[in-house]
Amino acid sequence: MKILITGGAGFLGKRLVARLLARADIDEIVLVDVAPAEGLGDPRVRTVAGDIADSTLMASLVDAGTAGVFHLAAVVSGQAEADFELGMRINLDASRLLLDLCRQRGHKPRVVFTSSVAVYGGDLPDVVTDDLALRPASSYGTQKAIAELLLADYSRRGFVDGRVLRLPTVSVRPGLPNKAASSFASGIIREPLNGEDAVCPVAPETRLWLLSPRRAVDCLIHGFDLDADALGRQRAINLPGITVTAGEMVASLRRVAGEEVASRVHWERDAAIERIVGTWPGAWNTARAETLGFKGDANFEQVVRAYIAEDLRR
Amino acid sequence: MKILITGGAGFLGKRLVARLLARADIDEIVLVDVAPAEGLGDPRVRTVAGDIADSTLMASLVDAGTAGVFHLAAVVSGQAEADFELGMRINLDASRLLLDLCRQRGHKPRVVFTSSVAVYGGDLPDVVTDDLALRPASSYGTQKAIAELLLADYSRRGFVDGRVLRLPTVSVRPGLPNKAASSFASGIIREPLNGEDAVCPVAPETRLWLLSPRRAVDCLIHGFDLDADALGRQRAINLPGITVTAGEMVASLRRVAGEEVASRVHWERDAAIERIVGTWPGAWNTARAETLGFKGDANFEQVVRAYIAEDLRR
Repeated sequence: MKILITGGAGFLGKRLVARLLARADIDEIVLVDVAPAEGLGDPRVRTVAGDIADSTLMASLVDAGTAGVFHLAAVVSGQAEADFELGMRINLDASRLLLDLCRQRGHKPRVVFTSSVAVYGGDLPDVVTDDLALRPASSYGTQKAIAELLLADYSRRGFVDGRVLRLPTVSVRPGLPNKAASSFASGIIREPLNGEDAVCPVAPETRLWLLSPRRAVDCLIHGFDLDADALGRQRAINLPGITVTAGEMVASLRRVAGEEVASRVHWERDAAIERIVGTWPGAWNTARAETLGFKGDANFEQVVRAYIAEDLRR
Repeated sequence: MKILITGGAGFLGKRLVARLLARADIDEIVLVDVAPAEGLGDPRVRTVAGDIADSTLMASLVDAGTAGVFHLAAVVSGQAEADFELGMRINLDASRLLLDLCRQRGHKPRVVFTSSVAVYGGDLPDVVTDDLALRPASSYGTQKAIAELLLADYSRRGFVDGRVLRLPTVSVRPGLPNKAASSFASGIIREPLNGEDAVCPVAPETRLWLLSPRRAVDCLIHGFDLDADALGRQRAINLPGITVTAGEMVASLRRVAGEEVASRVHWERDAAIERIVGTWPGAWNTARAETLGFKGDANFEQVVRAYIAEDLRR
């Protein structure tokens, strides 16, 4: 089986590749990303650095042997808000290009697409249900919601076998801060554990809906393996998460790593970030995801401990 | 004030132009349509025949003096299902092109966009509420839902002042049958009144959600005139309609025009049409539309009588 992963150089992409390479049914993995991806030294992995909105490049990467696509690449929320055209080009045009290439090949590959809490917005209930209208309050959320609609229609018409996984905010993400409005949701744990100060730009009582990187990759694999019949027409799945306030996140950090580490978090509210993050759900109903076999985290302390065990570079 | 109307040669476009020309605040109306539009002999009307997905043409029609846009042009539901690429080009690409031209001009024109019952699909409640998720079951509905999302984000960012009017099925539409799955919803009234046989392709108990052309044009004008503050972030409005079954429609025709006319309707179910129409709401909640001052029809008999009075050519 040949797999294409867009955004393959990202932190989820890297973990996904490692997990896929452990399987017996993978013959080739093509990683495409704007940044050069690491091949992990496995001859089955081919890395391509380039623009996923480039139709010539992408046409060379999708062929009738491409059994599965993980479309992870995106311009993150803060950046899509700051650079409208870039967000439209990568989050919308490149997604459509990928779906159209699959359509033109005619072999109906499985396509796993990562969507986001950001598709929701407006006045949200405490717990978002599956039937709630999407009213994204950011261009990123709009672009993700549009790509979801495309993927549903391309699936309905039999062009692809699509699965939309709506990810909670992924925390604790390893690596460097990025331009996502949610970047702090990893930074306020990761930076202090690495001896650095971090700024929390939202109020301590702000609710976040979180999923750990390990569980997120489990969900990507499970979403890929799921039988299409289990999904039916409704291709989007709200993945399991846990509700944690920003204050509780730092309290967990304090319990796990001590007061000195936790005191590296400074509270400085940022209106631009609050405006985006404040429109995201603090929780959504996970009954359907659980029925379909997706699993989330137990609690945030375990997530912090897993970050320390798996990712912390000293 | 200069107004641009896409789909200006259609039946709603023609009526809209006549209504706008009666106003004192209109200096110029540009009608663009794939078919040549009639100018109504008024020097304020300029007609352009062309492709609304043609960026050169459209760039020549949108300028900083374009105070308002009525974007009515669409590839109808049955045709968008039969010709996927055509539907994407006109219903999605041309909508985005129009919004991008407005964005580039930078003067935030009012844009009225006509959407449809077809944005809904899946398992619907008896009465659809404003907060229900859009799960369109046709490519037409998908393309309309995507254009709605674009219009909301372009409005949020201040690129346009957009208003999405979700129209019930418009009946009784004058003129010829078209490739809309709902074409019969006018044909079963119009053709018998014109002495011709008509086929009803859905079961008599099929619920339809209808709005007359006269009221539809009232709603377009009202939607254009509405103060943006009244809309807030939620730019889509489910316009008032009336619930009528196909059987009740023919019964109304019988009461108004007699048994001989009503007997010209033949019942022959068409699975392809039922598959699309059966996913549309039979009713939706109209509280918000009414609060905003939109008005629907009183009952279907009045709609039939209005068609006879205003449109019937003998």
